[in-house]
Amino acid sequence: MIRFYNGRVLRFSPEMRVTEDEVWVGDGRICHVGPAPETPPAFERQIDLRGDLLIPGFKNAHTHTAMTFLRSCADDLPLDEWFYRQVLPHEALLTPERLYDFTKLGILEYLSSGITASFDMYFHNDAYAQANIECGFRTVICASLNNFDRDVENIEREYLKFNALDELVSYRLGIHAEYTTCRERMEYLVSLAHKYKEPCFAHLCETKGEVEGCLERWGMTPPQLLDSLGFFDYGGGGFHCVWMSDEDVALFARKKLWAVTNPCSNLKLASGIAPLDRLRAAGVPLAIGTDGAASNNALDFFREMYLASVLQKVQSFDAAAGGADAVLEMACVGGARAMGLTDCDDIAVGKRADLVVIDLRRPNMQPLHNIARNLVYAGSKENVRLTMVGGRVLYENGEFFVGAEPEALYEKCNAHIREMF
Amino acid sequence: MIRFYNGRVLRFSPEMRVTEDEVWVGDGRICHVGPAPETPPAFERQIDLRGDLLIPGFKNAHTHTAMTFLRSCADDLPLDEWFYRQVLPHEALLTPERLYDFTKLGILEYLSSGITASFDMYFHNDAYAQANIECGFRTVICASLNNFDRDVENIEREYLKFNALDELVSYRLGIHAEYTTCRERMEYLVSLAHKYKEPCFAHLCETKGEVEGCLERWGMTPPQLLDSLGFFDYGGGGFHCVWMSDEDVALFARKKLWAVTNPCSNLKLASGIAPLDRLRAAGVPLAIGTDGAASNNALDFFREMYLASVLQKVQSFDAAAGGADAVLEMACVGGARAMGLTDCDDIAVGKRADLVVIDLRRPNMQPLHNIARNLVYAGSKENVRLTMVGGRVLYENGEFFVGAEPEALYEKCNAHIREMF
Repeated sequence: MIRFYNGRVLRFSPEMRVTEDEVWVGDGRICHVGPAPETPPAFERQIDLRGDLLIPGFKNAHTHTAMTFLRSCADDLPLDEWFYRQVLPHEALLTPERLYDFTKLGILEYLSSGITASFDMYFHNDAYAQANIECGFRTVICASLNNFDRDVENIEREYLKFNALDELVSYRLGIHAEYTTCRERMEYLVSLAHKYKEPCFAHLCETKGEVEGCLERWGMTPPQLLDSLGFFDYGGGGFHCVWMSDEDVALFARKKLWAVTNPCSNLKLASGIAPLDRLRAAGVPLAIGTDGAASNNALDFFREMYLASVLQKVQSFDAAAGGADAVLEMACVGGARAMGLTDCDDIAVGKRADLVVIDLRRPNMQPLHNIARNLVYAGSKENVRLTMVGGRVLYENGEFFVGAEPEALYEKCNAHIREMF
Repeated sequence: MIRFYNGRVLRFSPEMRVTEDEVWVGDGRICHVGPAPETPPAFERQIDLRGDLLIPGFKNAHTHTAMTFLRSCADDLPLDEWFYRQVLPHEALLTPERLYDFTKLGILEYLSSGITASFDMYFHNDAYAQANIECGFRTVICASLNNFDRDVENIEREYLKFNALDELVSYRLGIHAEYTTCRERMEYLVSLAHKYKEPCFAHLCETKGEVEGCLERWGMTPPQLLDSLGFFDYGGGGFHCVWMSDEDVALFARKKLWAVTNPCSNLKLASGIAPLDRLRAAGVPLAIGTDGAASNNALDFFREMYLASVLQKVQSFDAAAGGADAVLEMACVGGARAMGLTDCDDIAVGKRADLVVIDLRRPNMQPLHNIARNLVYAGSKENVRLTMVGGRVLYENGEFFVGAEPEALYEKCNAHIREMF
């Protein structure tokens, strides 16, 4: 067992609060949250928090992890040029071997940012899953059915395979997006959702042009079209959700569909600002993702959290909009539930030990007026002291414990891009 | 002498580029930039960059350093409530002793963010200057004349005193803002500017309401009003510059006035997005500031740089807007020149040794497609390996060398806020 003591704990249920409990971890799960007993048991390791804060890890609820290979090579371009000249042709060169290395690079970045799980949508999923399992990182693969797939039935095989493969990996159904997927394939995905009673996800309402195109093609917005096909009959949600009509918002609220926001990507690609306050007020459940490094370019959850709040303020010209507490809940709790990781959403007995220690003894976390707000409005990767997934310490004091030497990995990644570009 | 070797150097003049030179520092200045000579001299210390990047430090061209005391205690409030209920009453309790400690807290945060100089506008300037000198940090104090000052002539005394006090401290003329300063006092400030042939600065066009109020009161925008009084006869500039008319932009371009942008503060207080691309296209020189922690809440230059680019993209719905190279130039070069620190603006022989080592061996800096873009779009405080001001290492590998123990300082700061709130 591992013991975290002498610090603070951020807990969410039944309400968000910071307590001074200690936390014990055994067999990958949290087995005690509370005061120290008079005669504590023997521990494998005791971690003195020295006043620092233990939190449930951040859940990256929408990403394309291996897109680290495109970081800083496709910036400051018009959207079309970015996608057709930079992203698509180079993705074609991303072999499973290369994707494996770039996935590991992304996982290192997640760990350094306090992220303990990802909801990933990309390809070469065998190599992707292997990289995650070898690192000890938790991931939920989201199917990304689209018109370029040569083997449509592979979705069902992957669904069965990855949900049985490893405790760290699971798989959910989805299409890439309405504009990349024909109706027949959408209907096939819906048939799987009905067969397995599964939620479905898609890139949704990311750009104004996407919504306009869908209206032209179908006379319906993307959420309405998908819903009319039965896509959301067992729940699910959308990634981005920037351009949502009032009817779309009402649909998401009624069916409790997850709206996953990607603030940095939406700024960098000039897509817009998602109406999070409007969604929240309507009762839509919310989560946060980094999107891929091709459009962000970092996988930095502190930057996403900060923007998930302050962009609401500037969009409405109201400094009281947004709000740190709601953002922290989206980051730690909402993301977990959106991905189906309902036992990774809090610090409580029985929950999985996906935990992060936040260093409060850095100047940006002082003074201690309000720890939650410090975290959202002033936090940065320098505050991530330790990241644990499934009870294993994968990152501590700047060092990675994932079975891969960072510098050797960087060399491999740079060798790949020299061949690819 | 200190030697930086085995790495990369970011240089700006005559054009931005990354070279593989080494850099030597002696007597607070850079004394060699180039290849290693066959017989190098003796060095006091040799720093192996291990491939990392040496850059001219970031210049924080608008801030209120000691406002760290208000971090996270006045968030998510309407602007009026923020200012009149939280900022003003608590500022009244900020004694010189307290301001001294909160200034040191801000300096630690600057160092951890790669900032090597600040352009600060606040009060209790003796205590403020002392804190900077004791830490070895470089600062330019900007006068902040306004209607609450009891002793107007103090500006001239401070101008003479702080410009003669210490190599690390200088002083420039300014008013707080049009809306807080009567015409008589503006004219007094202009008389000083004329007497000493000095540039003048002010908070300017921060909010729409400020500009509308000024138009009502004077029939002119703030830049036009100040210019009509002779305020800009020897140059200067404005802080924020969010709501600039075409005439204001033309005035700034014609007189080469500095527009200092504060992207995070403008988001958090819902002020708006400064039109940096429009200003740049017109030829207005640009710099970046964090503003104070009361409205930001971090003093994190990576966040400011990122937003200085990507907000331009979303504002114009054009992913090609903004751009990393221009932002890096604003951060390192523009800021120095705006503040009058023209010998801190580059890595070249004779320039002051205000330098930062960027750790490229972190996952967010890989792969190395483009180092400048990695820095602006993916950089974070975890990448600041070393910060040097005037040839002295003040921060390295997470540790501070400023003659103050961080944990003792945090205790003092928390004791202050317990008394003040």
